[in-house]
Amino acid sequence: MSELLPNHLAGQWQAGHGAGTPLVDPVLGTELVRVDAAGLDLSAAFAHSRDHGGAALRALSYRERGQLLAAIVQVLQRHRDAYYEIATANSGTVKNDSAVDIDGAIYTVGHYARLGDTLGDRRHLVDGDAVRLGKDPLFQSQHVLTPTRGVALLINAFNFPAWGLWEKAAPALLSGVPVVVKPATATAWLTQRMVKDVVDAGVLPAGALSVVCGRSDGLLDALQPFDVLSFTGSAQTAQTIRSHAAVTQRSVRVNIEADSLNCAVLLPGEVTGGEAFDLLVKEAAREMTVKSGQKCTAIRRIFVPQALYDAAAEALRARLARTTVGNPRNDSVRMGALVSRSQLESVREGLAQLATQAEVLHDGAGHPLVDADPQIACCIGPTLFGARNGDRADRVHDTEVFGPVATLVPYRDSAHALALVRRGQGSLVASLYGSDPAALAAAALELSDSHGRVHVVSPDVAAAHTGHGNVMPQSLHGGPGRAGGGEELGGARALTFYHRRSAVQASTAVLAAL
Amino acid sequence: MSELLPNHLAGQWQAGHGAGTPLVDPVLGTELVRVDAAGLDLSAAFAHSRDHGGAALRALSYRERGQLLAAIVQVLQRHRDAYYEIATANSGTVKNDSAVDIDGAIYTVGHYARLGDTLGDRRHLVDGDAVRLGKDPLFQSQHVLTPTRGVALLINAFNFPAWGLWEKAAPALLSGVPVVVKPATATAWLTQRMVKDVVDAGVLPAGALSVVCGRSDGLLDALQPFDVLSFTGSAQTAQTIRSHAAVTQRSVRVNIEADSLNCAVLLPGEVTGGEAFDLLVKEAAREMTVKSGQKCTAIRRIFVPQALYDAAAEALRARLARTTVGNPRNDSVRMGALVSRSQLESVREGLAQLATQAEVLHDGAGHPLVDADPQIACCIGPTLFGARNGDRADRVHDTEVFGPVATLVPYRDSAHALALVRRGQGSLVASLYGSDPAALAAAALELSDSHGRVHVVSPDVAAAHTGHGNVMPQSLHGGPGRAGGGEELGGARALTFYHRRSAVQASTAVLAAL
Repeated sequence: MSELLPNHLAGQWQAGHGAGTPLVDPVLGTELVRVDAAGLDLSAAFAHSRDHGGAALRALSYRERGQLLAAIVQVLQRHRDAYYEIATANSGTVKNDSAVDIDGAIYTVGHYARLGDTLGDRRHLVDGDAVRLGKDPLFQSQHVLTPTRGVALLINAFNFPAWGLWEKAAPALLSGVPVVVKPATATAWLTQRMVKDVVDAGVLPAGALSVVCGRSDGLLDALQPFDVLSFTGSAQTAQTIRSHAAVTQRSVRVNIEADSLNCAVLLPGEVTGGEAFDLLVKEAAREMTVKSGQKCTAIRRIFVPQALYDAAAEALRARLARTTVGNPRNDSVRMGALVSRSQLESVREGLAQLATQAEVLHDGAGHPLVDADPQIACCIGPTLFGARNGDRADRVHDTEVFGPVATLVPYRDSAHALALVRRGQGSLVASLYGSDPAALAAAALELSDSHGRVHVVSPDVAAAHTGHGNVMPQSLHGGPGRAGGGEELGGARALTFYHRRSAVQASTAVLAAL
Repeated sequence: MSELLPNHLAGQWQAGHGAGTPLVDPVLGTELVRVDAAGLDLSAAFAHSRDHGGAALRALSYRERGQLLAAIVQVLQRHRDAYYEIATANSGTVKNDSAVDIDGAIYTVGHYARLGDTLGDRRHLVDGDAVRLGKDPLFQSQHVLTPTRGVALLINAFNFPAWGLWEKAAPALLSGVPVVVKPATATAWLTQRMVKDVVDAGVLPAGALSVVCGRSDGLLDALQPFDVLSFTGSAQTAQTIRSHAAVTQRSVRVNIEADSLNCAVLLPGEVTGGEAFDLLVKEAAREMTVKSGQKCTAIRRIFVPQALYDAAAEALRARLARTTVGNPRNDSVRMGALVSRSQLESVREGLAQLATQAEVLHDGAGHPLVDADPQIACCIGPTLFGARNGDRADRVHDTEVFGPVATLVPYRDSAHALALVRRGQGSLVASLYGSDPAALAAAALELSDSHGRVHVVSPDVAAAHTGHGNVMPQSLHGGPGRAGGGEELGGARALTFYHRRSAVQASTAVLAAL
């Protein structure tokens, strides 16, 4: 039997009491390690985090907590090679895709480390200016933000075991709130290892960072009113979380990031082979294949003017055909595996559903696998669908196939394009491609109410833009509607979730002493 | 039979198809009007609000929407006398208490009217500065807030039929979001009348303001992903709302303001009969009796240093004994009725529960009723309990008796006081009384994580402070934990709930065109 990874709870390494769930190499099919959390006292662990981790973090200033994050960056950089090895083995990703997760995580922690320095030597945040409450200027209202006295339970998805941990944990720790992370079981190893390295390095106060892996019944039962819960994953699990008594009765604050039918739109007025056209094709093909399309921000729908539909189909097909798929250990491979056989199965079911309403423009099943056994490896080539009548193709707007899959859809005019985009019912990202700044700005504003991020690619930023699917810590991550309604990152905005806002109404003498 | 009040939905006045629920004068016991919403097409009504009201409001700038609010202020002022008559009849409140609701409403709409002028001729809000996303300054991220393309469903409590409507509707309308208000049935008349006056005056676009009264099964079923729901009421109803598929599956954004065990604290170091002592006694007695204690912000727990417990008890007793209770139409009456016989029953049950863990310092049952029949009128005098051992008196910290009821609790030292306050598990307001600005500021920060508002009363603001229980539109209203975790008002902060935040990542040329 493989190694059973311990959990870190209540400041101690604790093995689960069960047999454990094996984690598997999705390319080779071999068992790597096991995780288990059966029989652990979660309520005691959460109480320890609140009482020890929380108190110790709150006693520090933002600058000091930022220094803790800077120390975490150093620990993670020291062990970076090990993380890449784990990612190759457990996620089946090529090096460039592992980098999105691992180096993306380190960059994000570094961003919040620097933000701590900016926030300085205080222990609460001032929110806006003091305002008068009447004619007499003596009595005023000053809003403040103070860290919540609870734990931050972070429940993450399998596709970002590194970045998913730190994009949530960095703002929480900077806010003075202790973290308990529950990674998705399939890829929990990398999360557990990063927590282990940071805990072993002794850079954080006891109870500030905990990890629990595997099935964890009762996790939400341990939540109390001042705790917060940040979740990334399926809409179905989100529904279970939202219906739990911790949320409905105990007012635990929840952030949800669920699935999303993100899109890319080539604006009207562009031509085949023009700069904007080429930028769309390049980005859409890239987004379909990065991490084998297992990104909540990946482009699922590609909208082009109907006159350019055939040309866009041809250009995308040509790019996708060049994608080599298989064992990430082979240098010629550009796209590795899906995370598991069950995900592969799920993607195949999704492909079958889309095929009932769309034509196959490029079939991923035709890609030979490099150095990988199709009976074992969770690998599949990229598939592009086309739906000439986007109004009728419900599933194109409803079904998120979490793999290297997208659908090309033509539109008649701007209004039609916006209407089709909105069929997604709220997404994380829309990207717009065009060369007219005024038209791009207008379209961005039109879509900003239904997208947490609008990524605009014009020829002048062809080299400088950060990519449709890359989540930058400076920008909001999350989206309304079916995307879950959550808000993460966005620089200092991320801290609000881990703070409580309060209006202090007092005399100016008291406010001056805050 | 009394008049059946029509609902305003889909731009039309529509009577419910049922017999209706009678609204009753809580002092005289007479039937006033009836309300009913049976058999109405709520989904069609909500769709009309989204498609017509929403589109019309979003086409206006913040300044223009502010002008709509200013027009509403004029309408409400024109009909002010009628509102006072309805309040006397349906809420049983004395004139000063009706003013808290009615004039508080008008003041709040006026505040947001002025804010609209400040926000100016735009249709979206800029959120922070643009920030670079890399070394190249050409590509940046600019966050914006745009109005959500849905309806705002406002579900309100019986105690504030006027203010409860407008403190939610003013920020929603200013944000460009159409409103459907569902008042609590017992006092729905005043809400319905205000909506009627505004609709009849023709100051708002069709579909911008709707009202539905009485039982309204299926109200939440009509909600779609971009709608928002703001609720004030019981924790039990809040739980039902949070568990509904609109929230758990469709990500409808929800704001909850539930019950709360607010407190007043006299800081250590004060003396009997000192200025801070007197200010606490005056404010606590006032808060117990305003609107017969039917305020979610009312003081329920009064904490004093143990050496001052007996003196505080005596001073509060003396004030409460002077409270005349009965028919609000009699000028000698200072405190009117509870809203209904069922509320009176609920208060009596609460009194019995508190009596098991606390001594009665002043018994409201001993107050004779002026011009009111005790068999009919929902009147009850103010009751003060005392709990010498606050650590053991669970119910004092857990049981919100929604009437003229509070409990005096002694504490040993500052740490003990803070621990006792926190037993409330999150409240709307704490008020602090003292004369040392540094000690007041430190205590305010300590309590700011568990209270949406900390109201600090020092002798220098004895005349200028706005009152523990008065909700000013400039300050946040809401509280964490058992208070529901919501955030309302707070000036421009209120608009965030009705907007969607989005990061627009683009070249500086595109951002300049936003």
